[in-house]
Amino acid sequence: MKLYGYFRSSASYRVRIALNLKGLDYEHVGVHLVKHGGEHLSEAFRAINPEALVPALTDAEEGGGLVLSQSLAILEYLDEKYPQYPLLPKDLGLRAQVRAFALSIACEIHPVNNLRILKYLSQTLGVTEEQKNAWYRHWCEVGLFALEKKLSRDNARYAFCFGDEPGYADCLLVPQIYNAQRFQCDLSQVPELMRINQNCLEHPAFIKAHPSKQADADA
Amino acid sequence: MKLYGYFRSSASYRVRIALNLKGLDYEHVGVHLVKHGGEHLSEAFRAINPEALVPALTDAEEGGGLVLSQSLAILEYLDEKYPQYPLLPKDLGLRAQVRAFALSIACEIHPVNNLRILKYLSQTLGVTEEQKNAWYRHWCEVGLFALEKKLSRDNARYAFCFGDEPGYADCLLVPQIYNAQRFQCDLSQVPELMRINQNCLEHPAFIKAHPSKQADADA
Repeated sequence: MKLYGYFRSSASYRVRIALNLKGLDYEHVGVHLVKHGGEHLSEAFRAINPEALVPALTDAEEGGGLVLSQSLAILEYLDEKYPQYPLLPKDLGLRAQVRAFALSIACEIHPVNNLRILKYLSQTLGVTEEQKNAWYRHWCEVGLFALEKKLSRDNARYAFCFGDEPGYADCLLVPQIYNAQRFQCDLSQVPELMRINQNCLEHPAFIKAHPSKQADADA
Repeated sequence: MKLYGYFRSSASYRVRIALNLKGLDYEHVGVHLVKHGGEHLSEAFRAINPEALVPALTDAEEGGGLVLSQSLAILEYLDEKYPQYPLLPKDLGLRAQVRAFALSIACEIHPVNNLRILKYLSQTLGVTEEQKNAWYRHWCEVGLFALEKKLSRDNARYAFCFGDEPGYADCLLVPQIYNAQRFQCDLSQVPELMRINQNCLEHPAFIKAHPSKQADADA
């Protein structure tokens, strides 16, 4: 498998964790979102993923033609195709809860704060650096706080989001907390999430997936 | 089943289409996002869904306690629990493509343009009505155009997004086009999407799910 990604892209980070949890080998192809005017915008990369977004995954087992995009679709694919170390639980109600948790990050927090949105705020709407950072922190804190409340209600203080082994939800949580810390969000209101994040950071699959450990990481 | 939704919320609209495609009965409970300072923000509704977002679904078959949230998690749940009229195809590569299409709408287009974001732009960042509408149209047009290119490349001119019967991706597409039209987006660049949208609008499951047909629709 080839994973086209960017060391700091949290969607790429999610997929790296999932691949590592399942013990799947993959080749990492760095696509730098900032250098060269954004390598993801190049014609070469658009030919691979017309949406011009990372991550994208190719799986030689499915033939070269199949290009998977969207991190959550990739996670679902990996869980269906490579059932070792299931990311999702078996119980249907619990699966729905786990997916809802993941989607809360993927649909409510992350998209509002990704690079192209922040650029539009600065370059097109002319907001100040301070306003941009406040925007980031606002959506991140509001979103994480809702998850904290949900998890505190549902989670019986497992070591990880939904059990004593990391899974689907943890693949989303850790990259989001990483982002939140980069932007100095106030995380004092989400102690449960931070406890789980810490457990993840000590797990080999997460250690190997960390942005700082990637070949394309900025020095 | 009880579906807590808002007639014009496109996430609620997605779930209505899916329930109708599967022929599942449900009770619609209107949660008005504008009236009474936003009924979704009330303590009563937060007790049901702490994220304060619609839609939320309860399924009596799973006991009263299970509250499903996040429209895509609900679609996955319905497809797993009620296998009649599968929304997702069986082939793993195709499932991934369908999910990626849906996630492109759910993660790239919709979150950036939902009500709370637009409010923040107006009320906190003080952007003009014109700038707000340009923001909306920008993300909608960029996102739909990427999907048009992807579908034109992959789709063998099926009647619907990924086949000759509507499915998972169509549940996402139609509400997004509905939103795009409300905000006068330029849809001349997405003829394939518009052809498929028109086919959907003539299908009974989509007709019944249309915002204008809901009990809580504004006069």
